[in-house]
Amino acid sequence: MPTIKEILYKIPLGERLSLYGWVSKRRVTKNALFVNLYDGSTLQVLQVVADPDQIAPEVVKKITAGASLYIEGEVIASPGKGQSREVAAQSIEVIGESPVDYPLQPKQHSFAFLRTIEHLRMRTTTFRAILRIRHAVGYAVHAFFNQRGFYWLHTPLITSIDAEGAGDTFRVIKDSGKEVTPFFGKKVSLTVSGQLPAEAGALALGKVYTFGPTFRAENSNTTRHLAEFWMVEPEMAFCGFAAMTDLAEELVKYTITYVLTECVEEIAFLEKRALQEDPRSTPLSKMLEQVVGAPFKRITYTEAIELLISAMEDNPNRFAYPLGAWGDYLQREHELYLTEYFQGGVVVTDYPQEHKAFYMRQNRDGKSVAAMDLLLPRVGEVVGGS
Amino acid sequence: MPTIKEILYKIPLGERLSLYGWVSKRRVTKNALFVNLYDGSTLQVLQVVADPDQIAPEVVKKITAGASLYIEGEVIASPGKGQSREVAAQSIEVIGESPVDYPLQPKQHSFAFLRTIEHLRMRTTTFRAILRIRHAVGYAVHAFFNQRGFYWLHTPLITSIDAEGAGDTFRVIKDSGKEVTPFFGKKVSLTVSGQLPAEAGALALGKVYTFGPTFRAENSNTTRHLAEFWMVEPEMAFCGFAAMTDLAEELVKYTITYVLTECVEEIAFLEKRALQEDPRSTPLSKMLEQVVGAPFKRITYTEAIELLISAMEDNPNRFAYPLGAWGDYLQREHELYLTEYFQGGVVVTDYPQEHKAFYMRQNRDGKSVAAMDLLLPRVGEVVGGS
Repeated sequence: MPTIKEILYKIPLGERLSLYGWVSKRRVTKNALFVNLYDGSTLQVLQVVADPDQIAPEVVKKITAGASLYIEGEVIASPGKGQSREVAAQSIEVIGESPVDYPLQPKQHSFAFLRTIEHLRMRTTTFRAILRIRHAVGYAVHAFFNQRGFYWLHTPLITSIDAEGAGDTFRVIKDSGKEVTPFFGKKVSLTVSGQLPAEAGALALGKVYTFGPTFRAENSNTTRHLAEFWMVEPEMAFCGFAAMTDLAEELVKYTITYVLTECVEEIAFLEKRALQEDPRSTPLSKMLEQVVGAPFKRITYTEAIELLISAMEDNPNRFAYPLGAWGDYLQREHELYLTEYFQGGVVVTDYPQEHKAFYMRQNRDGKSVAAMDLLLPRVGEVVGGS
Repeated sequence: MPTIKEILYKIPLGERLSLYGWVSKRRVTKNALFVNLYDGSTLQVLQVVADPDQIAPEVVKKITAGASLYIEGEVIASPGKGQSREVAAQSIEVIGESPVDYPLQPKQHSFAFLRTIEHLRMRTTTFRAILRIRHAVGYAVHAFFNQRGFYWLHTPLITSIDAEGAGDTFRVIKDSGKEVTPFFGKKVSLTVSGQLPAEAGALALGKVYTFGPTFRAENSNTTRHLAEFWMVEPEMAFCGFAAMTDLAEELVKYTITYVLTECVEEIAFLEKRALQEDPRSTPLSKMLEQVVGAPFKRITYTEAIELLISAMEDNPNRFAYPLGAWGDYLQREHELYLTEYFQGGVVVTDYPQEHKAFYMRQNRDGKSVAAMDLLLPRVGEVVGGS
């Protein structure tokens, strides 16, 4: 049975077929019943048209947002605008009815509302776009490392290691209904980083990466914190600082290029949505093309601090966290300023030793370390390495 | 800098180069120093030959198993057997020394011993082979689903869902050093299955899969139980039982074929190792080729029970768990008998309702459900579905 993607882009006009899908919107006029149908194969909807006299009124009544349908019909050129093809339905069967109080109606819902219907929000165009892009990013990460001879390691999630002490941890205990007992004979937590096992792996396999869930128990309810998130951690033996930084830049560019190629509809949708909210912002696709189109600017932390301090000379109130001297921490607003200033990706290197983890290699100046943060416009830090 | 894989298979003879690697074995004769070197790029070792008079004696002393070296030399044809090329070293520098009590010596270590040195065991040829195959399997799973329009979903690991009640769970609590407090305002555990969120995802994206860690708190210390393991869970909307079973067979065959193509050295190594332990066993590559080379046998649970009971007529002691009647549970020994009998993959369908989860669709007979288990030789159940 063809998918909607195949019907829109592949199947010859005039072909008779049957298909399944969910209703996102329906409209009845005197002469026609219009149904917008999606099935997950593309972000686009398929318009299905039927003669309302040919469909029983009790069926028409059940064709509402969220219902799932089985349709037999024919692919025809669409006279309407917004799509080049549609399906003229000979028969429509309602497979799954949607309740009258189905909360997803054909309009833009707020994220605050969607948070209350987690099991349904994936059906909105916005979430479908984001999830498809997330899939593409995940796949691109695996493809990138596989091509370069890296091995995907599954490092333990339940662990007694707390890595470099990266924040509060979640403890794991056995709960057998009545009693709570330790399970592994010692105190264990959810991992905050697969780095240590991955380092052991790199000393066996040369080049490895982890790509799995990671946990932080900070009680910070901001858009920049999650209790559970997926993280990528490459580790390479016999690799210097410059090659590591190049790899980070290549990974970011490879992933964005893959998404720009594979998720054209999704990026266009999110771009339109963002421009509705802020018409003066740079279009998403243009921003991403700028990022992949130019070498990332490499500057040292020292150069970055000088640049940021001189930016404050024009406007002392430019930053919520004013910078005074070498050694001050870069906040997200400073990172975003740097990406704005250089109009693309920026790699800041050689941070003060106090800003970074204990194991990073000290530089000859005795006060900075061979560490880097890779910054992207609108996001800030995306990769950190040493 | 070239990898050992490139030196063995790609770089022209006579080329001068420098390389890094770890010593797996060294041998000194009057006229030559032989070093077996690996760097993770291939399971093979590279033989490096040097004139012992050209290397300082204190350096030669430090070239021991586990040491990491920097070598400058030239690719030459190897006069020895076992390899077609080697590197004639002009200089050898020891980058990282190995202690005198380094536990991995050039011999086969027992798994019991290797369990005690988890941070080092990945360096053994056996573990390197297994980890490289595991990487190939993981990559093949993603490639398979991506090609077929599935979306990779990251379902929550910390959850208040216990799916179908699949065993004991691990509880997650916040541990902030001194006090232990609930974090999410309710009781949460580590997931035993991403199935429910994935089902919600399939109703939005059509075809989705999870591929992530899963947890079981059973205190079973057998080779068939793990507290933490990675699992794949596809969910499809608008998909019938036959198409689901076909997908499971295709996934297994795609993955094995990919491994047979990409991991030739690794399979050959493990095959040799297994034949040393049991010379009469079917060679691993032959067994895998049999599995991918024929359609998997499809039989109902009812047919399977009849076949197994008739097998007991020849030999009443054939099974540790004798089977008596319809409704008896299939144990692993019975599953393995079926794969032996049919010499390949077997899909058993239509199990008694009591054997399977509550949500599986009942068949018209009123006592069995539309569920299947996919069985492989030597392993037993690999996929279950409904």
